[in-house]
Amino acid sequence: MSTTEISAAYYKGSKQFEIAKIMAPPPLAGEVQIRTAYVGICGTDLHAFHGRMDTRIGCNRIIGHEMSGIVENVGEGVRHLKPGQHVVVRPLAHCSECPACKSGLQHICHNLKFLGLDTDGAFQQLWTVPEYTVHQIPESLPLECAALIEPVSVACHGVSRSRLQAGENVLVIGGGPIGLLIAMVAKHAGGNIIISEVSEARLAIAKKLGFKVLNPSQQDIVASVMTETNARGVDVIFEVSGTQPGVDTMTKIAASRARIVMTAIHSEKRPIDLFQFFWREIELIGARVYTHEDYEKAIELVTNGAIDTGTIITDVGSLENIQQAFEALEGNPTAMKSLIKVADW
Amino acid sequence: MSTTEISAAYYKGSKQFEIAKIMAPPPLAGEVQIRTAYVGICGTDLHAFHGRMDTRIGCNRIIGHEMSGIVENVGEGVRHLKPGQHVVVRPLAHCSECPACKSGLQHICHNLKFLGLDTDGAFQQLWTVPEYTVHQIPESLPLECAALIEPVSVACHGVSRSRLQAGENVLVIGGGPIGLLIAMVAKHAGGNIIISEVSEARLAIAKKLGFKVLNPSQQDIVASVMTETNARGVDVIFEVSGTQPGVDTMTKIAASRARIVMTAIHSEKRPIDLFQFFWREIELIGARVYTHEDYEKAIELVTNGAIDTGTIITDVGSLENIQQAFEALEGNPTAMKSLIKVADW
Ligand SMILES: [Zn+2]
Ligand SMILES: [Zn+2]
Ligand SMILES: [Zn+2]
Ligand SMILES: [Zn+2]
Repeated sequence: MSTTEISAAYYKGSKQFEIAKIMAPPPLAGEVQIRTAYVGICGTDLHAFHGRMDTRIGCNRIIGHEMSGIVENVGEGVRHLKPGQHVVVRPLAHCSECPACKSGLQHICHNLKFLGLDTDGAFQQLWTVPEYTVHQIPESLPLECAALIEPVSVACHGVSRSRLQAGENVLVIGGGPIGLLIAMVAKHAGGNIIISEVSEARLAIAKKLGFKVLNPSQQDIVASVMTETNARGVDVIFEVSGTQPGVDTMTKIAASRARIVMTAIHSEKRPIDLFQFFWREIELIGARVYTHEDYEKAIELVTNGAIDTGTIITDVGSLENIQQAFEALEGNPTAMKSLIKVADW
Repeated sequence: MSTTEISAAYYKGSKQFEIAKIMAPPPLAGEVQIRTAYVGICGTDLHAFHGRMDTRIGCNRIIGHEMSGIVENVGEGVRHLKPGQHVVVRPLAHCSECPACKSGLQHICHNLKFLGLDTDGAFQQLWTVPEYTVHQIPESLPLECAALIEPVSVACHGVSRSRLQAGENVLVIGGGPIGLLIAMVAKHAGGNIIISEVSEARLAIAKKLGFKVLNPSQQDIVASVMTETNARGVDVIFEVSGTQPGVDTMTKIAASRARIVMTAIHSEKRPIDLFQFFWREIELIGARVYTHEDYEKAIELVTNGAIDTGTIITDVGSLENIQQAFEALEGNPTAMKSLIKVADW
């Protein structure tokens, strides 16, 4: 197999992308080469764009991992995939040898490589990844919608970690894209959802989707939640805000034996009311990325319409205009998920 | 039935007990009157003795709840118990109507009454309690040992909440009576136990019991734990210390998907490394008091010798000398559990 010339967007540091023509290498043994269709811009990509991951990713990196595409070529020994199949990538490469991998927790491998951060990613026309990271999707599923499967898998993982039962009360703290996706997945699982968010623009979107909403900067959130739940409190809480007020709220509105799922990244230590954990036998449960099963679940939910992809996808740009697409997301609360259409077909 | 004159120890405030002769009322319908044999002095009792619960319990209260005894009399409608049976009391009275009770979580009822704090307790010769709080114990079990069943139930509850599997690594942070009992119950469940404690006197006791011990004020606890666990970290952590160093340690030595059981009462908010919860998918699980099943398990463990009662019971005093027994516990790290022998037989 020969190499092919493709376009790729390189993050060069200091909020700059550069589009370059490169030669895509053919897939090696065990690898799958995918013709990229759409790639979503993740919060992590924005973080990288802002230069906060330079020490990890360097300043000559193709980022992007929320992708959909069509298999172009497969390397030697690849048996489960063939050219023409529609696919998405679960962008996690594990080591197989650390204590987490040995316990079957490959998704939180101690030496985890995140494809599209620790390796070159999907903002290029041909992306080559290990076979085991590739999930086939139905051809009936539009590739645009399929680019949401990665963030939907984050939501599926959180809901799975929460052990949510149908009929339970759910509070999602934070109404950005991940918060909304968690709300949709939790609703599909039978939860009674309330979304807490301080941006009125985001609350309007949540409301339009049919969710009960609360603005803790306008309302007494504890009183409101207790009214909504008949003084029971909330059974499952998703902390997606990453803020101290979010952390303060989570213990105040928790029902007895509530599960609080920590999906947010808190970069500093947070004062927490441990007494409430003891008193109400609350659980705090960390949830990071996703497993193979979460991906299969997400594919099912996006395919069967449980995810309102139309509301989540607020913009579709082109690879040439990736710079503008990233810039447009800064300080824009109504932007949920921007996709980059990489396909030229 | 007539009333009987008995001795009772009243907490009168300001670290003072007063022994009084009172008339014990006969048991009402649904109640069981127990001739008290032994009563352990709990950390909570010491807390009350120090005046820190005066607003809750008042200054004319018979405290004590870690008891064993023999049924003296039963009230109307009591069917499962009869005079002469050896028993212990699970000192929790629930309301049946709050959200916790309605969810089957009577032990953390929102209106829970703790017998011996919110009602008069066991430091009296005849104690009358609701039938549903009484557990029968084998006559072969010495009543002295049976006084440990309440704190052993606390340990059983914590271990049950932890979902400990045989072969997992366990760290108990805090080597007082509850810490040692948790270590014993967790060891019986197949855990590989390490106890962390700053008092050398308490460490000596833990060591004598055959546990691996660490003194975080003398050793680098993270390095030591990682050596002990082959760099895996600890699967189950019991935070019994109630201290900030305990809270700091728990996230540092946690294995992937570790469960941290919060048994301690933290009276102030604690800065916590939430990022580790996310990163390693750690769980924090509150554990408060015990259920009916925990009591039955504790009775089984104390009866079959899984609990080294000889090491835990470090003193037995008399009801007349309850004042001295409480005073002797102040600042005495080698005192584990002091019992008061109330029985005059
Ligand atoms: Zn992402
Ligand atoms: Zn690994
Ligand atoms: Zn106690
Ligand atoms: Zn209740």
